[in-house]
Amino acid sequence: MLAGNVGRYHMTADYAVDYDVEADDEYVHSVWDSRLEPILTVDPGEVVRFECRDSVDGQITPESTDEDFAAVDSERIHPLTGPVAVAGAEPGDVLAVDLLDFEHEGWGYTGYLPGEARMGLLPEEFPDAGLHVWDLDDGVGEFVNGIEVPLDPFPGTIGVAPGARGTHDTTPPRDVGGNMDVKHLTAGSTVYLPVEVAGALFSIGDCHAAQGDGEVCVTGIEAPMTVTARLRLVEDRSISQPQLETTGPFTASGRDEPAYGTTGIAPDLMEATKLAVRHMIDHLASERGLTRGEAYMLCSAAVDLKISEVVDAPNWTVTAYVPESIFP
Amino acid sequence: MLAGNVGRYHMTADYAVDYDVEADDEYVHSVWDSRLEPILTVDPGEVVRFECRDSVDGQITPESTDEDFAAVDSERIHPLTGPVAVAGAEPGDVLAVDLLDFEHEGWGYTGYLPGEARMGLLPEEFPDAGLHVWDLDDGVGEFVNGIEVPLDPFPGTIGVAPGARGTHDTTPPRDVGGNMDVKHLTAGSTVYLPVEVAGALFSIGDCHAAQGDGEVCVTGIEAPMTVTARLRLVEDRSISQPQLETTGPFTASGRDEPAYGTTGIAPDLMEATKLAVRHMIDHLASERGLTRGEAYMLCSAAVDLKISEVVDAPNWTVTAYVPESIFP
Repeated sequence: MLAGNVGRYHMTADYAVDYDVEADDEYVHSVWDSRLEPILTVDPGEVVRFECRDSVDGQITPESTDEDFAAVDSERIHPLTGPVAVAGAEPGDVLAVDLLDFEHEGWGYTGYLPGEARMGLLPEEFPDAGLHVWDLDDGVGEFVNGIEVPLDPFPGTIGVAPGARGTHDTTPPRDVGGNMDVKHLTAGSTVYLPVEVAGALFSIGDCHAAQGDGEVCVTGIEAPMTVTARLRLVEDRSISQPQLETTGPFTASGRDEPAYGTTGIAPDLMEATKLAVRHMIDHLASERGLTRGEAYMLCSAAVDLKISEVVDAPNWTVTAYVPESIFP
Repeated sequence: MLAGNVGRYHMTADYAVDYDVEADDEYVHSVWDSRLEPILTVDPGEVVRFECRDSVDGQITPESTDEDFAAVDSERIHPLTGPVAVAGAEPGDVLAVDLLDFEHEGWGYTGYLPGEARMGLLPEEFPDAGLHVWDLDDGVGEFVNGIEVPLDPFPGTIGVAPGARGTHDTTPPRDVGGNMDVKHLTAGSTVYLPVEVAGALFSIGDCHAAQGDGEVCVTGIEAPMTVTARLRLVEDRSISQPQLETTGPFTASGRDEPAYGTTGIAPDLMEATKLAVRHMIDHLASERGLTRGEAYMLCSAAVDLKISEVVDAPNWTVTAYVPESIFP
């Protein structure tokens, strides 16, 4: 399904790009608001190539340090390209977005903020900020100690304008999508979004070259990227939150492979999640020679969180899985 | 890694069975209690074949109905085979259990209890009980409408005796393992358990021929089964909750394949989980012609719950994935 070149991930199916949108200031926005003027109106079925800035809007470069990440201005996060209006879309419709092509620029970053920022799953355990800048090449990102994380890019944030009047923060996802961080929205996938305003007002950005299910340190492999997508309207359907079709990736190699798992068992799903991730950080530190900060970032970029059971009251099991194949 | 015969799932590696334990009344227990007399003491590295009853102790047969499942005596759930003492095991040690071979008997069942029992993820939406009896054959279980779920058996409950004095319910998993329902503990996997009492006192049972991550209706494909396992002691390690090595399954086919996903987006992980499953039940009912009860059971047997993000405050994303390959 995917043809991989350096930096480019796309369906082999032919398509023609109808519109090309650059990430100029006038085509980028950092809040959701149905009052934003569309930058473009497309007919259903048309294909748009969106240039997308990285999630902190250029504040991090390949030369940045931990301190630079700590100093990021959070007012500038999630610059999204759009909104694009789809002719004829009405509240109650479903917008289908076929993700056709992703192209990165050869680098990305993963970072965690100082604990006092209260971002990420374990802020109390990481008082200082950390940053890793990845070389992205030949389908893998280079971490430390020879660790290579396979890449399969997706938009961290993809959605349509909320119907509720006013300005909405881009950090939380909501019924209309947004910052869902679903890592399976890769090239060849389709996401279905519930339309709440006339024209749908679609926007996209915050692309990740890879991410573990959970995105635990608050960043995947963040990267400026260009995304090509077809916007369609689906009739005779009604959904209340986003749905999707995907072909993965479900593992690092695309097939069953050895993984190491750590359970978190607790009477609260969030606490079980934290335990599973803490145990994985312990494992990566003791068995793979990573610093705890490196382990936290590797969890965010490559470790998948699964809910093993949510019915054996009063304790639930969440399990974190790291693929052995990423280690040299 | 696996050699599949009808009903049998095993590593191709050679091993000799040192002990054979039948699921006679004297070798089965339905509570965790460190005062239970071991049925057997093995040396580290020895291999035991455990006959395991099904999770409701024979109360369901291939001829059972929904009403029979509603009438199950919950005092008799989780009959576990054991406990087996491991010579030399001491509190603070780690018991490694290599899962070598599973053999089912050609049938299994998935059911949900009446809502008033408050079992399962969505009791309020399913007032009545439901039961599906599966034919297990040629590596797949037969559901309704031609749906076939691939099998890869594992023990729903596997653990050692808790150190805390007294009798402990088998329903919740805890630090020493137990009813973790980690579907990746398949043939070829190893689970690491923290030992809390001298001899470890290992027990196993509640086998599932397949299960989705989450086990949302409270049962996988429950089946009487025989499990062969090697019990080892690991030195120089300390863990606080179970960990594991696995080769999957991570998808139905063992490789990346088309899946349909439904998101649940909410400020509480449990609520996000419920939404994702509700949306999947809606999808299976409307697009695949299942009754809601059938859809609930199929979710429990074959739909995987992943935590997509747990950092985009205040809303988390849980996504449920159904493999398209199970449909005819």
